[in-house]
Amino acid sequence: MATVGILGGGQLARMLALAGAPLGLRFLVMDSADDACAGQCAPMVVGDFTDEAALAEFASRVDVATFDFENVPAQSARWLNERIPVFPAPRALAVAQDRLAEKSLFRELGIPVPEFVDITSRDQLEEAVARIGTPCILKTRRLGYDGKGQFRVRAATDVGEAWEALGAQATTVGLILEAFVAFDRELSVVAARGRDGEFRTWPLTENWHVDGVLSASLAPAMVDDALQARAVDYARSLAEALDYVGVFALELFCHDGELLANELAPRVHNSGHWTIEGAETSQFENHLRAVLGLPLGDTRMVGVACMLNWIGAMPDAGIVLRETGGHWHDYGKAPRAGRKVGHATLRAETHAELVDALQRVGAALGRESQVAPVVARML
Amino acid sequence: MATVGILGGGQLARMLALAGAPLGLRFLVMDSADDACAGQCAPMVVGDFTDEAALAEFASRVDVATFDFENVPAQSARWLNERIPVFPAPRALAVAQDRLAEKSLFRELGIPVPEFVDITSRDQLEEAVARIGTPCILKTRRLGYDGKGQFRVRAATDVGEAWEALGAQATTVGLILEAFVAFDRELSVVAARGRDGEFRTWPLTENWHVDGVLSASLAPAMVDDALQARAVDYARSLAEALDYVGVFALELFCHDGELLANELAPRVHNSGHWTIEGAETSQFENHLRAVLGLPLGDTRMVGVACMLNWIGAMPDAGIVLRETGGHWHDYGKAPRAGRKVGHATLRAETHAELVDALQRVGAALGRESQVAPVVARML
Repeated sequence: MATVGILGGGQLARMLALAGAPLGLRFLVMDSADDACAGQCAPMVVGDFTDEAALAEFASRVDVATFDFENVPAQSARWLNERIPVFPAPRALAVAQDRLAEKSLFRELGIPVPEFVDITSRDQLEEAVARIGTPCILKTRRLGYDGKGQFRVRAATDVGEAWEALGAQATTVGLILEAFVAFDRELSVVAARGRDGEFRTWPLTENWHVDGVLSASLAPAMVDDALQARAVDYARSLAEALDYVGVFALELFCHDGELLANELAPRVHNSGHWTIEGAETSQFENHLRAVLGLPLGDTRMVGVACMLNWIGAMPDAGIVLRETGGHWHDYGKAPRAGRKVGHATLRAETHAELVDALQRVGAALGRESQVAPVVARML
Repeated sequence: MATVGILGGGQLARMLALAGAPLGLRFLVMDSADDACAGQCAPMVVGDFTDEAALAEFASRVDVATFDFENVPAQSARWLNERIPVFPAPRALAVAQDRLAEKSLFRELGIPVPEFVDITSRDQLEEAVARIGTPCILKTRRLGYDGKGQFRVRAATDVGEAWEALGAQATTVGLILEAFVAFDRELSVVAARGRDGEFRTWPLTENWHVDGVLSASLAPAMVDDALQARAVDYARSLAEALDYVGVFALELFCHDGELLANELAPRVHNSGHWTIEGAETSQFENHLRAVLGLPLGDTRMVGVACMLNWIGAMPDAGIVLRETGGHWHDYGKAPRAGRKVGHATLRAETHAELVDALQRVGAALGRESQVAPVVARML
């Protein structure tokens, strides 16, 4: 019976452990916080990812390692990979950790991306803003997520403020300036690739963010087959270029029927949480199957599904539990502003059934604004 | 965040813990074996159910208790119930533990049962066999399961042998003689009842046993609506009579369109394992919802499903994992003859798809005889 090590002990590790138990797997989670929520579902090693003694203990107790968190230092991943198999490979992680490397790879593979410039000085930022035009976004190259480490440059006169906010990081994590895309939709393709190259994707998902954090996802996204096929092609070429093993998400902007790649998340992804109830095989199970060299499971949908994220605190469970297709996911975390503490998935046989459920849940929880864009898309 | 205590740490406790984590629940399992397989998914108290100190520790660490195992001594259940809420209530457990009490209740509620006689002596056994006729079955009143504690009386001349096999138990666990039913089908209705009396059943399931142990289940059972409705009525009247809270299974024989009650299992049941992938809400989740006073989840099916039990040792997982609707459940147990070590569920959108999958899996695993009766039913 294999033991899978997971670096990072948040909700992704927790859902991986829950998905892996039926496969007969055991888990060991490593996190610097001793109350990491995955620790409720699996044994833990408490330690920092840069602590070699903790990493050595972790390595000695697992057969293979993977990630719940993409910002594990690439050096720690490589150190581990000299001792045990690590999937995805440290190189894929390194590319995904660096917006510049990631976007350069997209461009190299012919995947359209918004314009971007590597920023190393204030003067160069000024020049780049003039060239790309406003609005545009200054981002840290590394360690940004959920809208953190970003500054929106609305006009050329914002350059000073932008540099003040993030300039100090130009010489540490690095900076990149990206053109702002006035997208119509945000989409993601969640994909799995096995050790043997077997490749599968779930249907394209449409996502809505609030303050840079995912609020709702609808699957399948209501797009035509050609667009779906293009997104899958991009994901496949990316996976092959990186010799990727496991599940990843490719986030895309859709503007006037064109797709632009935004970001690669080298792990199971919030926009794929609906696969637990809405697909034949969940992203969590397929990630584990991939990492262990097992055949990938089918990714067909079972009906239609909408995921609603709970940020800060859990709402009243009863409202969702009373819904025919209502499924509840409480990550077992203490409430805290801005923290992802859980989600709900509403599964339905038809769009009409899903619209009704979303409207009932939105009204009962006073979260009309969270469900409104999803409902509008289906009407 | 509530902690649910489970008496018994087998696969049922394991699957309860896995189903309960998304509800934000924590678990504590009590078992006399320190390697009980639920201990891989939840913390444990190791101790015998009759050990008051262990029970007291268990009670002090949980908010509510339930069972993975119906043969917890009724006295232990009552002792616990004086300290914490226990569902199902000890009375329901006591009835289900005693074939005589159980069958008497069936009769009282107008639920048809095969003829039965309480047996206390050899002479009385002889008399009862003469009256009921052969074949008939001598069973222990208590502690029998999976065909254990049973002796089939083929002819009146078998009485001596039957008494020799089980007679010593007449004064310990008690004996009951039951008429043998030449049934056409074995069916079960898995039902859930909430603390507030809310009642739901999953579609009727057809079951096939080999050597007294469940081998395969097909859901929905291919029966007409009237028969389905009658089975649900029986389950409902039983649940109400016992003021039952939680999930239970009522096992039924079907003969010439008539239903006869065989057994009440006061817990989640092997014939309901298909609900994990084949129903909107699984029996495990609904049991927990019931025990915690949460609304019950919908029990509609998602497609059609067949469960295959793995007894003794796990077969090659890859065969099932390659199937579109193939789902694997390895209980994390060491192999041992006669032991339930796992199961697979094949889910499909149509009977034709399910037949194909069963035939492929049966052939690839050399288990044609296990799938044959299920396939025959659908052809």
